This record gives sequence, C-alpha cells and structure tokens, in this order.
Amino acid sequence: MKGRKFVPSNSMEIIGIAGLPEVNEGDDLTRLFLDAVRDKRLELEDGDVIVFTSKIVAKSEGRVVDLTDVRVSGDAERIASETEKDPRIVQLVLNEAKAIVRLRGNHIIVETKHGFVCANAGVDESNVEDGKAVLLPKDPQKSAQGLKNDIEARSSKAKSVSVLISDSFGRAFRNGVTGICIGISGIPAMVDRRGEEDRFGQIARVTQEAIADEICAAANLVMGELAEGVPIAIVRGLELERCKSDIQELLFSREDDLFR
Amino acid sequence: MKGRKFVPSNSMEIIGIAGLPEVNEGDDLTRLFLDAVRDKRLELEDGDVIVFTSKIVAKSEGRVVDLTDVRVSGDAERIASETEKDPRIVQLVLNEAKAIVRLRGNHIIVETKHGFVCANAGVDESNVEDGKAVLLPKDPQKSAQGLKNDIEARSSKAKSVSVLISDSFGRAFRNGVTGICIGISGIPAMVDRRGEEDRFGQIARVTQEAIADEICAAANLVMGELAEGVPIAIVRGLELERCKSDIQELLFSREDDLFR
Repeated sequence: MKGRKFVPSNSMEIIGIAGLPEVNEGDDLTRLFLDAVRDKRLELEDGDVIVFTSKIVAKSEGRVVDLTDVRVSGDAERIASETEKDPRIVQLVLNEAKAIVRLRGNHIIVETKHGFVCANAGVDESNVEDGKAVLLPKDPQKSAQGLKNDIEARSSKAKSVSVLISDSFGRAFRNGVTGICIGISGIPAMVDRRGEEDRFGQIARVTQEAIADEICAAANLVMGELAEGVPIAIVRGLELERCKSDIQELLFSREDDLFR
Repeated sequence: MKGRKFVPSNSMEIIGIAGLPEVNEGDDLTRLFLDAVRDKRLELEDGDVIVFTSKIVAKSEGRVVDLTDVRVSGDAERIASETEKDPRIVQLVLNEAKAIVRLRGNHIIVETKHGFVCANAGVDESNVEDGKAVLLPKDPQKSAQGLKNDIEARSSKAKSVSVLISDSFGRAFRNGVTGICIGISGIPAMVDRRGEEDRFGQIARVTQEAIADEICAAANLVMGELAEGVPIAIVRGLELERCKSDIQELLFSREDDLFR
C-alpha cells in the first residue's frame, strides 16, 4: 500500500443520509440505504465514499447484547468496582478485548480483538433499548467489503463506490472524541507521500496521511457523534485511487507504538 | 464551554483555496486570502469556517529560521546523535518544547510551549527554502482571533466567520498524520452532549466531540497534507453556535492524560 499519489480535490461535499428506520438483526442495510438515498432524491455517483456508523452496521449484524444474559466473572466484578461501572458492561469489554492498555479512574482503555485501542472496547449503551449494549461489528473490514460489493451490485447508477465504517474514539493528549475509521473498502486507508517534491523542489520528508480517519472525522460533523437519525454520510468529490485496502494499515503494532 | 447543543447539518461543503503566492514575513494574509477567494469567483458567506494551515500563518508571522543562525547546545547534539537528526533542527525542537514526552528511535515527541503533544514540536523543513525551517505560530490562538477579526472587518459580504489554524500531527496507536486544530476563533472547539436524549429517550453518557479537530481533518482532505498550493479551505454548511473559544479546551492536563 506504498507509493500512492494523492491529488487533493478542489472541493468536496458531505451529505448526511437520514430517514432510516431503527435497524435490527438481519435487516438489509444496503436496501435501507439505497431507499433513503432515493427518498432524498439523490443519485449515487461513481467515486462516492459512503461512511456508515459502526452502530448501524453492528445492529444489522445482531451485535446487540441483552445485559441480563451476561455472566460476570470475578475479574469483571473487580474492575467494575474499581471503575464504578456496570459489571456486565465490564464483562463485555473484557470479552471484546485482546489486552488492557490502561485502567485508571473510571477509564478502561483496551486493545480490541481487531487491534483498535479505545475506551470500553467500543461497547456502547447509547442509542439502544434500555438494558442492552451494542458491540463493535465482529469484522468491520469484512462488513465494509460486503457493503461495498452489495451497493455496487444493486445501485442502478454507481458501479464504483467505497465504504468506510466509522466510530468515535477518544485520543491520547487531546480531549473529546473524533470520528475514526474501523473498516474500509475501495480506497486506500493511508496515502503515502514519500518522495513527492514540494513547492521548492525538495524531496519531502516521509509523510503518510491517514485519509480514512480524516474522512470519518469529516463525516462525523454531518452525522453527529450520537446517531441522531443520521447514521450514514456520502463524501463526494475526493479523487482517490481505487484499490484493495485494509484498516490494519493504520494500526501500529505494539512494538512500533510509542505510547503502549 | 459546556452544555452546547449541536444540530448536525444536513450537508456541508469544503472548498480549497489555491492560487496564493509564496508568503513571506509581514505579508497581509487576509488580503491574499480575500483576493484568492475573489479570483475563484467565490463569495464568503456568514457562518463560513475558514481553515488556514499553520505553515502559511507561520510564514506570514516570520516564524522561519535560517538553520545557519542556530546555536546548537550539548543537549541538542546528544539527542541529534541518538535520533539521527540535524542537530540544528533538534535545537529548534528543544527551543519550542516545554517537555520531552517520548524519545525513541528517531522520534522526538514533545509537549510544545502551547501545550500540544506532537513530533518535533511542529518544526518542519518541507515547503520552505533549503536550509530553513518553519516553526509553529508563536500564539496560534491569537493568530486565529486576529485573522477572524480582520476578515470580518474587510470582507464585503461576510460579517460573521470563524477561523481555525490546522496542522498535521501523528497520533498514538494509529499510523499516519491527520489534520488537527491548533488555534480557533468564532465557534466552539468541542461540543458537549452531556444529558442530551438519544433516540430511545435515554440520557446519553458523557460525550464531547472535538469538532475543531474534525473540521481540520476534513479540510486536510482538500488542502492535502503537504501544502500543494492549497493552504486554506472554506468549510461551509455547519450550523454551529458562535462563541468565544480556546484551543486549550481540547488539551488534557498532564494529570488527566492517561498516556503521559
């Protein structure tokens, strides 16, 4: 995934797609999306980047847990007591985690089984019925690929789109959450500018831009951090090379990470 | 800065502003910007969020250092040798730093005097003449405020805009740089959604969205990470409360930061 060129576009547009019904396990997300686009009197275009919130994807995949079904381990009880959290939520966090990265105050920062470093393994009690929690999609990379293939096959207009799945994560050093990418299909996650000449004819330093995260941050401004009925956004106007890609490109190995 | 409501917009647009000349100390950045907007046959609108790259602001403020003028200390020599960097660049990094956060491999991560945690204190040798380096603006918060006031006073159309100053920083846990905000004027840096009801009528968990960083990430997609002649972007369509704001809102204190 090295050596890609990236020509910044002159302008881009981000369109929020609202009006979807509440999504349940087994729902046909591509159909709901295409219907919502049609109801908005929009047409998909080739090159569109379609950003889905992880929550709507997770719900369609049945990644919703009834908290009364959770069996709480001793470890979860202990951490719940330290962090003043619901032990059942802590158990879900531990189930989803590969490793605990930080445990301090009421924060549980983990590395998820996917390799994402985030609070509570992305387990979320907002925008779901009381007594339930939503997990991250099991394999958001596969979800993105599936949605892309499905949209391209079933859209009457666009035969070449890309799909990103976004979540909102906190960051080290800076307060507040921002949209980030957890699954990508169709465009590069990162563009590599090693060796491009800058305006002074110098070969620029190694610079790699995590455009997948920038696109999800941009989409978050239209979607809102909570899913206020805008769970999907179309990002239009970016001129990006089409390619196979994997969100793993954006993840540091533990050895390469200066902060683990 | 608490308790703000944020209504996600239906859609937004990001317009890259190219065609500016090379900027030097003392240049009237507002005039260059307004001329470039006019040349593009655009009109500024009330509510526009104008994102300037830190580099163009720094150059206009004379934050360009001739490396032959740098006196290198013993500390800088030692760190330069460890990190295989130019000792003069290391000296500039130390001059701009309040504290070294990580020193590993060829990475120098510092807390700048402004409080930003980033590599090389933002000292950058790209897109500047050979033998020179560009520092971050001395007080980007003040720069943003000044540009906002100046644009509002001198634009014939827009009497109410906001200005953000962006840079590209690497992150913990994830590879690649993304656009982030280092100075803000006119809109909140963060929107606070504590206590908003979600779709199920539940009071959502504490959630604060760092929209200043999301806007700068979005703008970066149009500006490109290197300043390929697109040093400014207009973000249009966000419906944000106007207010006084300060980038310090986004910075964790060392005590609150789980990763320092």
